[in-house]
Amino acid sequence: MDATALFKFQSSLYVVSARTAEDYGACIINTGLQLTSTPLQVMVAVNKQNHTESVIEAAGHFALTVITEEADMPYIGRFGFRTSTQFDKFDGIETRETVLGDTYTPACAACVIACEVVQTLDVGTHMIFVGEVKDAEVLSNATPMTYAYYHSTLKGKTPPKASSYIAE
Amino acid sequence: MDATALFKFQSSLYVVSARTAEDYGACIINTGLQLTSTPLQVMVAVNKQNHTESVIEAAGHFALTVITEEADMPYIGRFGFRTSTQFDKFDGIETRETVLGDTYTPACAACVIACEVVQTLDVGTHMIFVGEVKDAEVLSNATPMTYAYYHSTLKGKTPPKASSYIAE
Repeated sequence: MDATALFKFQSSLYVVSARTAEDYGACIINTGLQLTSTPLQVMVAVNKQNHTESVIEAAGHFALTVITEEADMPYIGRFGFRTSTQFDKFDGIETRETVLGDTYTPACAACVIACEVVQTLDVGTHMIFVGEVKDAEVLSNATPMTYAYYHSTLKGKTPPKASSYIAE
Repeated sequence: MDATALFKFQSSLYVVSARTAEDYGACIINTGLQLTSTPLQVMVAVNKQNHTESVIEAAGHFALTVITEEADMPYIGRFGFRTSTQFDKFDGIETRETVLGDTYTPACAACVIACEVVQTLDVGTHMIFVGEVKDAEVLSNATPMTYAYYHSTLKGKTPPKASSYIAE
């Protein structure tokens, strides 16, 4: 078995975020998908070790933005390589709230999707959240960043908690 | 709500196929994802109106190939715009079988993944199949085709049964 075959899968990079009255979380994933068009549903898969996973579970909703190629490594590092429990990921950048109350940043974002969690599926290290889309907005016409672009152009690495981590 | 915001999501195009003793099915999806790395699991979401969906359910396993940019519109049309019940989608092209017995074609394929279904989740019009990866092989170094490339370069359309169909 050659697990590097999985590297052929193409995807966007996303920031998924959620907020409750007491807490919030935001992290980068490449595991977002549109599932159905009627009704409009998307899904995300988030590692249970990410603080954001427990916040989505508690909140019952989440915001999803598609990262554009305008994002640089400090942007990726802010959301992807730090933890919301020790660092305010939205500090010093523009923030907005979705209709469901989840904070997101329009910076380096092609669009934002506001989702209410309608189903979950435990797949081991990760949890799948199926979200019904309650609002969706285009934020920019900049090119969405693919995971391939992140690896080849930004020379980005895949952290061990990511779905697509393959030990070398 | 601006549903075209969902067009920003990037993905590959895949052929998903399955075979039982009596039947087989194959179709194109853009809803494949790597879910976890330990164990190695992927998922596909397939429209229940696609013949392939019932064959995956009956077989309990499926093959997934990532389509490359070598694919032309006749290739896309063969797998994406016809039905396995009326047309042998593997007629006249090279075919192989995965370790689980699912037929696939190495033509225009970057890799093939052999998956055993370990969980399902009904999301309405579509069914999610979570598959544990039993085998994986790189087939080509040609560039994987993104859904954006399919729309912009091949001028391909999105059929109504696709997850990402938005009525105009």
